[in-house]
Amino acid sequence: MTDEHVEQQQPREEEQEVDDRLLRLAADFDNYKKRAARERAEYVSLANERLVKELIPILDDLERALNAAEQHEEAQLEEGVRLVYRSLASLLERQGVKEIATDGKFDPHVHEALLAQPSEEAAPGDVLDVIQKGYTLGDRVVRPARVIVAE
Amino acid sequence: MTDEHVEQQQPREEEQEVDDRLLRLAADFDNYKKRAARERAEYVSLANERLVKELIPILDDLERALNAAEQHEEAQLEEGVRLVYRSLASLLERQGVKEIATDGKFDPHVHEALLAQPSEEAAPGDVLDVIQKGYTLGDRVVRPARVIVAE
Repeated sequence: MTDEHVEQQQPREEEQEVDDRLLRLAADFDNYKKRAARERAEYVSLANERLVKELIPILDDLERALNAAEQHEEAQLEEGVRLVYRSLASLLERQGVKEIATDGKFDPHVHEALLAQPSEEAAPGDVLDVIQKGYTLGDRVVRPARVIVAE
Repeated sequence: MTDEHVEQQQPREEEQEVDDRLLRLAADFDNYKKRAARERAEYVSLANERLVKELIPILDDLERALNAAEQHEEAQLEEGVRLVYRSLASLLERQGVKEIATDGKFDPHVHEALLAQPSEEAAPGDVLDVIQKGYTLGDRVVRPARVIVAE
């Protein structure tokens, strides 16, 4: 046996240490990846769970409104629908949903022109009427406002 | 300079290679952590966005129902509420929400007893009446069913 051979079989302490660190780091990395994938799935279901929990009382209110309808209690039915509307609108607002403004000029980034009409009062390019409200979520357009524009 | 000193300043090739692998692995790990945190936030907002997008048409239908109410079109109002109820119930179902069964024995895991009443027809411990429906999401109880139990 040569001296060199012996050295390869018994690596010096520092080499062993670096190898150990490499193995530990690789194991940590692997564990982290597994945990991250698990957490990702949990985060999604938790985020949804929070929303779902808020939607269930709204379903309750709808059921109550339907019961009122069946008993021809029109005033209660109407009040119930108003309550449901307010609850759902407020839930969406808390989620960061905002109604797109339609007072003023047509903006192709947030509006969709369904029709162009001549108008005596409005300037060309003004929004004349809203066919369907539009909404943003954060800085994204969830749905453009569908509008009629002045020619 | 001793021979040993020279060896420390110029590590052998294998050592250099292990050091490089260690550095690369550490850098990969770090990048992975940053990406995972970013993805986690994106997943949550995407998951919510999907739900939010499904809720907006329900808000539209509620608005239409309210318009019908204002114009005293009672039949249209009632039909609108039914539509909203079906949409929301189906959305929750697709999210994995299930109504808790209440036909049979009281089950403390999914039921909450609000009251115990004597009953001639039902066996002791049977659910007599449901005050508020309960729901599960996957294997979790979102809300227990609130019931009246036979004594």
